[in-house]
Amino acid sequence: MDSASFRVEGKRMVDFVADYWDTIRERRPLPDIKPGYIQELVPSKAPASPEDWSAIFDDLESVVLNGATHWHHPHFFAYFPTALSYQSILADILSGGIAGIGFTWKSCPSMTELEMSSLDWLVDLLGLPEHFKNAHDGPGCGIIQSTASDSTMIAIMAARAAQVARIKAEGDVGLGKWTADIGKTIREIFERVKSNKPTLQSQKSIHIVEDDENAEMIVPFYHDPTVFEKFVMYCSDQAHSSVEKGAMLSGIRLRKLKAQRDFLGNFGVSEMTLRNAIRQDRDRGYIPFMFLATIGTTCSCGVDRLDVLGPICEQEGLYLHVDAAYAGTFAFCPEFKYLLNGIEHADSYNFNLHKAGMVNFDCSPMWFKNGTNIAKFFNVDALYLAHEYQSTAADYRHLQVALGRRFRSLKIWFVLRNMGVAKIQDYLRGTEKLAAKFAELIIEDGRFEHFVPQHLGLTCFKLKNSSNSDNERLCNAINEDRRIHLVPSTVQGNYFLRMVVCSQLTNENDVIFAKNVIFEITDRIFDVY
Amino acid sequence: MDSASFRVEGKRMVDFVADYWDTIRERRPLPDIKPGYIQELVPSKAPASPEDWSAIFDDLESVVLNGATHWHHPHFFAYFPTALSYQSILADILSGGIAGIGFTWKSCPSMTELEMSSLDWLVDLLGLPEHFKNAHDGPGCGIIQSTASDSTMIAIMAARAAQVARIKAEGDVGLGKWTADIGKTIREIFERVKSNKPTLQSQKSIHIVEDDENAEMIVPFYHDPTVFEKFVMYCSDQAHSSVEKGAMLSGIRLRKLKAQRDFLGNFGVSEMTLRNAIRQDRDRGYIPFMFLATIGTTCSCGVDRLDVLGPICEQEGLYLHVDAAYAGTFAFCPEFKYLLNGIEHADSYNFNLHKAGMVNFDCSPMWFKNGTNIAKFFNVDALYLAHEYQSTAADYRHLQVALGRRFRSLKIWFVLRNMGVAKIQDYLRGTEKLAAKFAELIIEDGRFEHFVPQHLGLTCFKLKNSSNSDNERLCNAINEDRRIHLVPSTVQGNYFLRMVVCSQLTNENDVIFAKNVIFEITDRIFDVY
Repeated sequence: MDSASFRVEGKRMVDFVADYWDTIRERRPLPDIKPGYIQELVPSKAPASPEDWSAIFDDLESVVLNGATHWHHPHFFAYFPTALSYQSILADILSGGIAGIGFTWKSCPSMTELEMSSLDWLVDLLGLPEHFKNAHDGPGCGIIQSTASDSTMIAIMAARAAQVARIKAEGDVGLGKWTADIGKTIREIFERVKSNKPTLQSQKSIHIVEDDENAEMIVPFYHDPTVFEKFVMYCSDQAHSSVEKGAMLSGIRLRKLKAQRDFLGNFGVSEMTLRNAIRQDRDRGYIPFMFLATIGTTCSCGVDRLDVLGPICEQEGLYLHVDAAYAGTFAFCPEFKYLLNGIEHADSYNFNLHKAGMVNFDCSPMWFKNGTNIAKFFNVDALYLAHEYQSTAADYRHLQVALGRRFRSLKIWFVLRNMGVAKIQDYLRGTEKLAAKFAELIIEDGRFEHFVPQHLGLTCFKLKNSSNSDNERLCNAINEDRRIHLVPSTVQGNYFLRMVVCSQLTNENDVIFAKNVIFEITDRIFDVY
Repeated sequence: MDSASFRVEGKRMVDFVADYWDTIRERRPLPDIKPGYIQELVPSKAPASPEDWSAIFDDLESVVLNGATHWHHPHFFAYFPTALSYQSILADILSGGIAGIGFTWKSCPSMTELEMSSLDWLVDLLGLPEHFKNAHDGPGCGIIQSTASDSTMIAIMAARAAQVARIKAEGDVGLGKWTADIGKTIREIFERVKSNKPTLQSQKSIHIVEDDENAEMIVPFYHDPTVFEKFVMYCSDQAHSSVEKGAMLSGIRLRKLKAQRDFLGNFGVSEMTLRNAIRQDRDRGYIPFMFLATIGTTCSCGVDRLDVLGPICEQEGLYLHVDAAYAGTFAFCPEFKYLLNGIEHADSYNFNLHKAGMVNFDCSPMWFKNGTNIAKFFNVDALYLAHEYQSTAADYRHLQVALGRRFRSLKIWFVLRNMGVAKIQDYLRGTEKLAAKFAELIIEDGRFEHFVPQHLGLTCFKLKNSSNSDNERLCNAINEDRRIHLVPSTVQGNYFLRMVVCSQLTNENDVIFAKNVIFEITDRIFDVY
């Protein structure tokens, strides 16, 4: 395909996408297919010779769209929203056209600098602390990660390394808080660290290198399992599954603290619960090092209050990471800024613009209070990546697992400039208002109750006086029906249904439609209700 | 921006990208800017109200392109290539327009199934083992990861977990290979595993869960630092920096084995070196568990021979991961298939189609011999992700860190169907031929020598009878000149220059131009040469 053909076919694809979104109401949110459907449509071998573009274009409907779950259908109410905007697609066309890789400042300066600049814009718009800004004098910084799962794992590894560094540097956490038991644990760790490094000779910035006869052994200095073996981190029992995944892959014990209902009826970790867990774990020889707070849990949009829990983390020397994947975007609106009360206590903060922020996946901004320190824990040097400005310019590779990076800041830049924050606020307020409407409607015939009060775009509901299996049966029937799509969740043994307003096209009639579908299916499958 | 405006502006952006590539020769590969250049061009605050699209479009040249490193400029010879094709951009437009998230089969079936199908196509085209295919009866599978760094870390964590599982299940590695020392190590590990889990009560598929008074402690079962503390993995001393990063973040000791020159003069780990390291480390109480082979090292395009080293890994019970990030794509050509001799021994294999494969970043295919087993090590269950087909359909979330995923297989599908393998082969053969031409030219005036024989698109060269600082001075001068861009590397203390043929636009005249620039600068800065 030469540039002349691309000019033609690129435009046809732009129209195809515009048509798709313009006519999405004619589809159903869930496809009517079974696993393996594609085997009938796509040959098992690649074609022996090139095919005309028109043949490929003709397959898009049957192979791609007919087998897709339509996340932007107005009757898609599952998971959380994923963003879509025309401005983002324009940004991706340009990013793909430049096709540079920004692992260092030098490998694509505008990619690094526009990311720094865009993330500083967000700090202001969301009301985050000034110390997060790339342009601030201090060591804070902002970076785009791919997903909240990546951010969570990086935060856990950063917190783990910071605690290992403190223990290695000071022989204790430097807070004079060790009980007799934990003092013993630390002493034991030191003995084992020593016995594990029999030929210790030199130390470079990251690793201890042991030279032996004919090869070097690189020992993880800041990521030393001998030291972190007894570390324990905390999160709410409603935190996202990615927290468990991040802890697991980092070889870290995770204690899920039982969230309590607050005075509004939603769930969060209480001050007492966190304090008790830290004390109890220190008493039995574990080393608490991190609390991962969630703002807007996936199961019930609960909130761990940073203004209450943040000061405890500071007093007790725990790293505080805040995961606001879904809810974080709502801080664009003054009336939702309460979500981030206490954010100044956070060591790192992450949310997904690609959820409710009108910026297409992937775009998960993350900030560090002390990025300079964190970068040290991820830094591995290679000569082919060195450049003359590396002491003065940001190299984002040191704050992520991958080396390569795309030009994702273009999406933020295009959306914030051309769409403007007001349009994002309209969308956020709209989803909240529609969720409130649905929350009102779902209880009108008396058979349903809220499991927690509706919060932001999420309504959690269940049949009154029902068993978990009643609600599971209802949820399955709704999805088999295929007119609307939602998913269930559980909190502390209670199964319930989650209805999230996602699509920009969803309006009040769609919410009434959803309620009617749910009532109709309830009528059909339950005699008793 | 409504769909009517998108139809207009989308087309304008398609033309902008086509124009960029059509006229890229008028630019220089490296921008002439300093860190912080963007502060003059981009305001420190987001605009208070939306701006016209035309204002944004007008900034693209000054802000974005003028500050970009042009990876597709015909005189860009640095790092390794990154791919660009019009078909890939078409795929990204569609992926952005659908904007679905494929973390489970159900969340977007066509995204999962087209990925399975495209990766099976690649197995045939590259001559990989049948057991890697998603459609094969066995437990093998293929998945698209973002980058080789991600694949490497996942492979290390998978190998680590597999070894932990074997030790926990069998009390030894089940090979009867433990020496007296290593037997003692294993016994000590077991004692510590026991003492670290005082209240062990139940076991679920992934973790040991300890219930205590009011909260559960989730202990990493397959990722248990008590067990992996003495693990050691191996790679060549020329492996990519991401191997050190992956090992470091996984808390694993890494021994870089000194690569030897083979009969052709390039570097690879020898059979003897690997055997000796394993024996030596077992003798001193470490637990060798993995060898990471590189096919086409970044520094010198060296190769660790799989047909020689693979059988040792099998005999010794080491997990074999193969990183062929750059060179892997060359296996599309029969004459380069020698690179993958012995690939049947690999437990996992990864290469980047987004390097030499005409598929835009990110697209890093990875295959596992036993994906079913590996998925177990990454699996954390959450009810909101459960679906009725999860026992029969593939859920790619279990083979990566992130939960969310884009529709990246469209890029492979479009490129393989419309471009065809022949065009990719032409590009690969062209870069190899041009590199060979450059290799011939660079030594013609007698001042330069090859550090290793030219291999694939890479030529490594240095001044004859020179010091490292002479070559460093030359490399810096070339990049300050800005007419061509290349980067240096070191192998075993020797500094040299790397020249990689990257752009699809590079032709023989460009290679002659590069040689002339290098000779001219050498004339200018060295009296002695």
